[in-house]
Amino acid sequence: MSAAAPPAEIDVRPGEVAVAAPTRADACLQFIGRLRTPWKERRDCPRQGDHVNGPLCRVELDAPWRPGLKGVGQHGHLQILYWMHLARRDLVEQSPRHNGLTMGTFALRSPIRPNPVSASLVALIEVHDDHLVVRGLDCVDGTPLIDIKPEKCPEAPVPKAPAA
Amino acid sequence: MSAAAPPAEIDVRPGEVAVAAPTRADACLQFIGRLRTPWKERRDCPRQGDHVNGPLCRVELDAPWRPGLKGVGQHGHLQILYWMHLARRDLVEQSPRHNGLTMGTFALRSPIRPNPVSASLVALIEVHDDHLVVRGLDCVDGTPLIDIKPEKCPEAPVPKAPAA
Repeated sequence: MSAAAPPAEIDVRPGEVAVAAPTRADACLQFIGRLRTPWKERRDCPRQGDHVNGPLCRVELDAPWRPGLKGVGQHGHLQILYWMHLARRDLVEQSPRHNGLTMGTFALRSPIRPNPVSASLVALIEVHDDHLVVRGLDCVDGTPLIDIKPEKCPEAPVPKAPAA
Repeated sequence: MSAAAPPAEIDVRPGEVAVAAPTRADACLQFIGRLRTPWKERRDCPRQGDHVNGPLCRVELDAPWRPGLKGVGQHGHLQILYWMHLARRDLVEQSPRHNGLTMGTFALRSPIRPNPVSASLVALIEVHDDHLVVRGLDCVDGTPLIDIKPEKCPEAPVPKAPAA
């Protein structure tokens, strides 16, 4: 499932600069689960996640990878990597304020980027055999999961989840 | 270039648990550049990057994507996403201390994971048309680049690079 044509509402804004979207498969990802969040549409998603006060979300893991959760409860924060599957991939300059003034894609955290991978800090709330409960996600419900790692950089101390 | 057979020195240690390595291509990455670091072999790499005192490294960007660097100099820290191209992808439990005691892959920052993407915090030191100079990488020289984003979570304040 490579990036499909972007939805109709994601047009190029005045001043934005597009190049040829990536078509080479230098490396391939196999999704290992999905994220369950309250946001059913892209437009409902918050600008960024809140690992202190954001809503509880689930990180669901497919069966082969569940043993990989052993010991994850030792960590109060995790880094969740996911694939922004609704994002177009071809803009090098973007106008986030719709005003013709542009910034380079790498100076923005826009989902629109050549490889739409997001790496988000979450607080770990609960550990289960097949999923985690976390705070701090900001993506649409059903977003594909790429990876889970301990987070090296907590922005604020929160109580650790009970050890798994 | 999907994951090739892992190098001979990366054997399964006592207690480690392997599953079938990913073979599905749910999404594909197109590398957008490469990282130039002092470490020519995996065994030379530091355990983790040091964005305060680590060596200067380069983030080289392929030509189509260079306009994406516009404005990146406003940010003192960046998140660099790269593909750990030498990592095997099939272990769900690992024994980092070689002692038979294992942790789940998702409780570790080991390069060995189903989708070997790393997201590292770096301090931005210099901005050039076709590359950045940064501190904080920990990967082997020539590692493929996936993405560059502003970092939301600086661990320590450092002077901002001059605006690009």
